[in-house]
Amino acid sequence: MLGSRAQGGWRALRRCSSLPRVVRLRVREALGAREAADAVRVQGWVRSVRSQKEVLFLHINDGSSLEHLQVVANPSLENRDLTFGSAVEVQGKLVKSPHRKQNMELQAETIRVVGPCDIWSFPLKMKERHPLEYVRQFPHLRCRNNTLGSLLRIRSEATAAIHSFFQDNGYVHIHTPIITSNDCEGAGELFQIGASSEVRESAEKTHFFNVPAFLTVSGQLHLEVMAGAFTHVFTFGPTFRAENSQSRRHLAEFYMVEAELSFTESLQDIMQVMEDLFKTVTSTVLSKCPRDVELFHKYVAPTQKDRLEQILKNKFVTISYSEAVEILKQASQTFTFKPEWGCDLQTEHEKYLVKHCGEVPVFVINYPYDLKPFYMRDNEDGPQHTVAAVDLLVPGIGELCGGSLREERLPFLESRLQRLGLTDAYQWYLDLRKFGSVPHGGFGMGFERYLQYILGVDNIKDVIPFPRFSHSCLL
Amino acid sequence: MLGSRAQGGWRALRRCSSLPRVVRLRVREALGAREAADAVRVQGWVRSVRSQKEVLFLHINDGSSLEHLQVVANPSLENRDLTFGSAVEVQGKLVKSPHRKQNMELQAETIRVVGPCDIWSFPLKMKERHPLEYVRQFPHLRCRNNTLGSLLRIRSEATAAIHSFFQDNGYVHIHTPIITSNDCEGAGELFQIGASSEVRESAEKTHFFNVPAFLTVSGQLHLEVMAGAFTHVFTFGPTFRAENSQSRRHLAEFYMVEAELSFTESLQDIMQVMEDLFKTVTSTVLSKCPRDVELFHKYVAPTQKDRLEQILKNKFVTISYSEAVEILKQASQTFTFKPEWGCDLQTEHEKYLVKHCGEVPVFVINYPYDLKPFYMRDNEDGPQHTVAAVDLLVPGIGELCGGSLREERLPFLESRLQRLGLTDAYQWYLDLRKFGSVPHGGFGMGFERYLQYILGVDNIKDVIPFPRFSHSCLL
Repeated sequence: MLGSRAQGGWRALRRCSSLPRVVRLRVREALGAREAADAVRVQGWVRSVRSQKEVLFLHINDGSSLEHLQVVANPSLENRDLTFGSAVEVQGKLVKSPHRKQNMELQAETIRVVGPCDIWSFPLKMKERHPLEYVRQFPHLRCRNNTLGSLLRIRSEATAAIHSFFQDNGYVHIHTPIITSNDCEGAGELFQIGASSEVRESAEKTHFFNVPAFLTVSGQLHLEVMAGAFTHVFTFGPTFRAENSQSRRHLAEFYMVEAELSFTESLQDIMQVMEDLFKTVTSTVLSKCPRDVELFHKYVAPTQKDRLEQILKNKFVTISYSEAVEILKQASQTFTFKPEWGCDLQTEHEKYLVKHCGEVPVFVINYPYDLKPFYMRDNEDGPQHTVAAVDLLVPGIGELCGGSLREERLPFLESRLQRLGLTDAYQWYLDLRKFGSVPHGGFGMGFERYLQYILGVDNIKDVIPFPRFSHSCLL
Repeated sequence: MLGSRAQGGWRALRRCSSLPRVVRLRVREALGAREAADAVRVQGWVRSVRSQKEVLFLHINDGSSLEHLQVVANPSLENRDLTFGSAVEVQGKLVKSPHRKQNMELQAETIRVVGPCDIWSFPLKMKERHPLEYVRQFPHLRCRNNTLGSLLRIRSEATAAIHSFFQDNGYVHIHTPIITSNDCEGAGELFQIGASSEVRESAEKTHFFNVPAFLTVSGQLHLEVMAGAFTHVFTFGPTFRAENSQSRRHLAEFYMVEAELSFTESLQDIMQVMEDLFKTVTSTVLSKCPRDVELFHKYVAPTQKDRLEQILKNKFVTISYSEAVEILKQASQTFTFKPEWGCDLQTEHEKYLVKHCGEVPVFVINYPYDLKPFYMRDNEDGPQHTVAAVDLLVPGIGELCGGSLREERLPFLESRLQRLGLTDAYQWYLDLRKFGSVPHGGFGMGFERYLQYILGVDNIKDVIPFPRFSHSCLL
């Protein structure tokens, strides 16, 4: 492992052969050390300074964990620049801590302020629990806040867990394109792109790509291309909607995990993968970042922990769209939108259904044919004509995942595209049904909504490093 | 492991309690099976049909490996739809193959054509080795070609290996934004974006984000934000250039791996990570996809295998920019662009340098101050004034990686931005130097160029699933 030798772990810095070896440690490594060590160097940012007559206490954090390393020093080492937010390099002895809550602490011999911090203009303050809305104003500094720090570590672990889940199960990862010439999928408002000079001058000018080009709203159609050669494929990348929404559930740029499975004839197969993905990734995150998750379950959403444990133990509930409408019709509650077969489920309906089922994730399957896009598989039922579609609804969020079997039968797809006047635009998609077509299906999961749900975070802007939404694109 | 139980591996399909259990296997699993099995089902696409008087041979592929599974059947099972390209489901006995080259084969009891293939209009032909330029014309079908299939499996493994490399070394993964309001970094032509209605009507209209917004050319500045809280961060995502280039080395949409390290005072630390990343990922790919890589090293770039093995064993060469210019000046070769201190290295120069050093990867360090962007760290040398920048040049490709130490000193950065008239736009970036600034640096590696290099693929369009370049955005 070339990598680990050079990067992580204990790294020896020998300055001069007669001096003891100085070992550079990350905070997480220092906190987890099994034994004391004589010459240790830790680098990071000061999270608190407490100066007493006899002793100076510092807390140092370097992003490797939520916990800080306590540094104990002689007050003579204090200096004007040693403030909250400053960057420091501390060298000394790593010893067992007398405190029950902390394993090790660092007895400083030298403290060097690498970069001072102007605490008067620094918007974060020592030992203050800033509300998420407050730190959101400072996109370039908010990662230095405990809550956002934990969020970003969790997001990183969840990302890795998603890749592992699919890799362990034999899926091929595909980078589906960000820029696409498909514009008629009907998944909401699109962003159009052009070379910057071109946009400024006139949209009548020749396009950079010769055709109008847009930011992708989903990698599904491109994954379907790949599902004609690989039976299991997935993608995990950014997707875009130009919706003019300020909602706590919508972003203009967000991440989606999407998978496509070939030789799959039942929606239940797809639902099983959705459920397995959710449970495997969540279990991994809970076991790899217990302290980071605890912060959310303690301060942000106090009831979320128990609920999540229950959910991981039980099978997700499944109801059909038709059953859902019946449940809504029989509800004592009055809705703003009257529930009716053939109409879209509104947020208020989704909320009621999830509550009705016991505040657990609920699969709703077999939606009206006329509500859904052309690529969904016709169930050939009636008189209430449906397609093999599924939405996964979860408490507090609404739709977390959406999926379907795809229409693999050429005549069905041809007549549907013809009625929509899309035959020419989707010749390539029809081709997929002419050359070794197979029953297949897939789904997408909104990654930010997933994080919101497991952590109990109310606003989607707080689970992504740099939120983009209408009227806002900071940095 | 909920995931593996439901997805991969042996899956029992019991149709009726009195019948034997039918096990569904992927081709890769069937080929690697240790023992014979009575009731096996394999699904995939027919790659060849050979009908003899006594026996019918099929080759089946499902994307799980380059190798096909041989199916042996009674000629009575043949039918009109059983052609090259058709999708089939074969059930029968998995037995040891009498052939030396193949471990197992499937003795078919039933063959069901799931989806026929119109071989007359299908652009891929049985047993033909289509040139890469030919299959490039069919972006929706080319994944069914052996070479592209291997490429996509390798790309998927390399992606996973990159994530693992950084995770194993304690880096936090960050999704840096795709849409950004930074437009003045000077990294080439940008794509501008707008809500589609907005672009069509007029660029004078209000912007969706209130400010002009562009597709990112690099995640570096956003990673630097994160490097103020986490000492090791990385990103791996799409980046964009609106360059009007048809070159075999450029795409409008391509993937970049970028890392940023805090508390790093030497360019050598950054170079070590670049070298470790290259070697670790390449070793992983070679060991995980030996047959897929072999295809390229056998048919696409026959000399690449030995060269790569040499490169993995030796340390990369390092020369300074000034040394490079001296080497070029002393070259017997005449260049179109005369080598001169202070001028950019041209492709012809890079080629010569790499050849001069023995056709191995070469780090070129310490470039002229005036050639490089504002964020690179001033070496304060002279009279030949340089910055702590590094490019990694590799044979056949040119620049594979670029990196630098970043200017962490507020006064240096302030005066540089002021001279460029960028002070207002980069207030947030200056802030990073006011609140606990630390010496730091990082680099980016072009993922497609990396794949081109290790596999010896001449054209960058052949190492990405859906290439986007000027005048072309298919699908």
